Amino acid sequence: MSENRTELESLGEFGLIDHLTKQFENRNSSTLVGIGDDAAVVSISETEAQLISTDMLIEGVHFNLMYMPLKHLGYKAVAVNVSDICAMNAVAEQITVSIAVSNRFPIEALEELYEGINTACKVYNVDLIGGDTSTSMSGMTISITAIGRSKKTNISYRSGAKENDILIATGDLGAAYMGLQVLEREKEVYNANPAIQPDLDGHDYVIERQLKPEARVDVIRFLKELDVVPTAMIDISDGLASEIMHICKSSEVGCHIYDEKIPIDAKTSMTAIDFNLDPVTCALNGGEDYELLFTIKQEDFDKIKGNPHMTPIGHITHKNDGMYYIDKSGSAIELQAQGWNHF
Amino acid sequence: MSENRTELESLGEFGLIDHLTKQFENRNSSTLVGIGDDAAVVSISETEAQLISTDMLIEGVHFNLMYMPLKHLGYKAVAVNVSDICAMNAVAEQITVSIAVSNRFPIEALEELYEGINTACKVYNVDLIGGDTSTSMSGMTISITAIGRSKKTNISYRSGAKENDILIATGDLGAAYMGLQVLEREKEVYNANPAIQPDLDGHDYVIERQLKPEARVDVIRFLKELDVVPTAMIDISDGLASEIMHICKSSEVGCHIYDEKIPIDAKTSMTAIDFNLDPVTCALNGGEDYELLFTIKQEDFDKIKGNPHMTPIGHITHKNDGMYYIDKSGSAIELQAQGWNHF
Repeated sequence: MSENRTELESLGEFGLIDHLTKQFENRNSSTLVGIGDDAAVVSISETEAQLISTDMLIEGVHFNLMYMPLKHLGYKAVAVNVSDICAMNAVAEQITVSIAVSNRFPIEALEELYEGINTACKVYNVDLIGGDTSTSMSGMTISITAIGRSKKTNISYRSGAKENDILIATGDLGAAYMGLQVLEREKEVYNANPAIQPDLDGHDYVIERQLKPEARVDVIRFLKELDVVPTAMIDISDGLASEIMHICKSSEVGCHIYDEKIPIDAKTSMTAIDFNLDPVTCALNGGEDYELLFTIKQEDFDKIKGNPHMTPIGHITHKNDGMYYIDKSGSAIELQAQGWNHF
Repeated sequence: MSENRTELESLGEFGLIDHLTKQFENRNSSTLVGIGDDAAVVSISETEAQLISTDMLIEGVHFNLMYMPLKHLGYKAVAVNVSDICAMNAVAEQITVSIAVSNRFPIEALEELYEGINTACKVYNVDLIGGDTSTSMSGMTISITAIGRSKKTNISYRSGAKENDILIATGDLGAAYMGLQVLEREKEVYNANPAIQPDLDGHDYVIERQLKPEARVDVIRFLKELDVVPTAMIDISDGLASEIMHICKSSEVGCHIYDEKIPIDAKTSMTAIDFNLDPVTCALNGGEDYELLFTIKQEDFDKIKGNPHMTPIGHITHKNDGMYYIDKSGSAIELQAQGWNHF
């Protein structure tokens, strides 16, 4: 080992993986796209490709078993990986699941976890085809790989957005983040006094969005029926602002998005206000909604107009125009990966 | 969670995964084989399939950083997954690598790990196409998925062995296990007195087999050139006896293997004797050699006869004849997954 010591935090997750893999070269003609999008793309025939995505979930980092029931954890672990395949405009068909657990977990706990995994497999029509279980020194780690398939011409990359394309978000945003805030607050209350019953009343919707997010395979199927291939696509796992910036940077374009267009459920807004938070900030920066963000050509807009699951939130501009959020007063605010700066 | 508590140890690794996944059903016609072989098989066209295998390696369980340099760990993590694809008579083309590390590791440590991964990618001609890095609460976890491709008619399953087929082992066996014994002994010595220099002299071969095992892609290519498709195949990760039993149980056959035929390197034998161990016991029960075990039809034997990398060690018998090891005196001893019983 070299004598220099650089802390991991100094690069951030994306910087770190870029740094570690910059020396790697692809050697197989079947490898169409490697690291850098929601899923890798492997050619399987002249016209078809496979989408492959992998994720590791770690107890204490990505989930907390104090408020995450194991059944929900199993379901969510599958859903977020299926969502990565959706983000390429494809549908997952297979998954592998590897689990490492310390012996503090009895078999009954793993049965609950696998019950959630099985429920998600049924809902998303995916087959569990492999994986292993092993002992860990502490806690639980889950690693999932999802595999989907698509015509090559139907795959949507992050990099395909063009000037004047329309930005669409599915569902509503910020709910999963507010669900987490409610759960964290009740955990604090419980830790301070375990005799107090948790007060989750009226927060069912945001809690469910946090504990049991859904992958939008329905949207992928709908787009196929409508014969719309998004020019670019990503799933919203880290917050709307960060995902828009990923698309704009990969596509070398700018954007305008409009405050009043961002879809936020009334229950999310109420919870945000209850926590003295701005609902739009929660939608822009709160993660784990697993909704889809995509761009379509203007001529495709009539096909999806009025669909209750899809909301136009802005449009793509020239790269030199920058990435802007337009607030209710009409002021343009530059997008930032976390929050934004007025100028 | 139910009130019953059953300890994980009570089922064993294979029993546990069978138990947890017995409710799962396959729904996609592209899923040809799920859990139960070295890799899953997914149909990608009328004539071709993909082989997909996944593995999780956990610090303190599967590797010990006290004597496993990170570069070797990265190399080995790729090699063992490439080996799983070899075990289906195919060659890996892509891998994904996910890493979780605590912040006790500086970036320089991960650079070494990825250097080993990159070296293995070059040697085995595989492309790193995805994965992520994240924080762990303690230690290091590596999850790798390997993807290969093959004509459907060339895939060798564990279940295809037939009576009178010849059992072949590649390379030599027991070396990785003896390497582990040497490293463990020196670790004990070091722990007792850190001033004493490790005495690894004369053990280079067995240590290298433990720290830097190779996947036998050369054997897969060789079999292809010779136009030999093994009737059944597995890689030797848990010891020869256990792997033979997997093939026999999956194929519903018995076997005879011969003590004097088992390929053991002279350096492995010397180290075993030094440790008061029987070399054949080490070959039968010591894991991590990552050699291949396969069966071929008698009529294919002439094609591989005399090949220095492939040793015939026995033959397949009727299921009712049982699974036997024939010792030097000609006595038949029933094979056991760990050790064996005289009768």
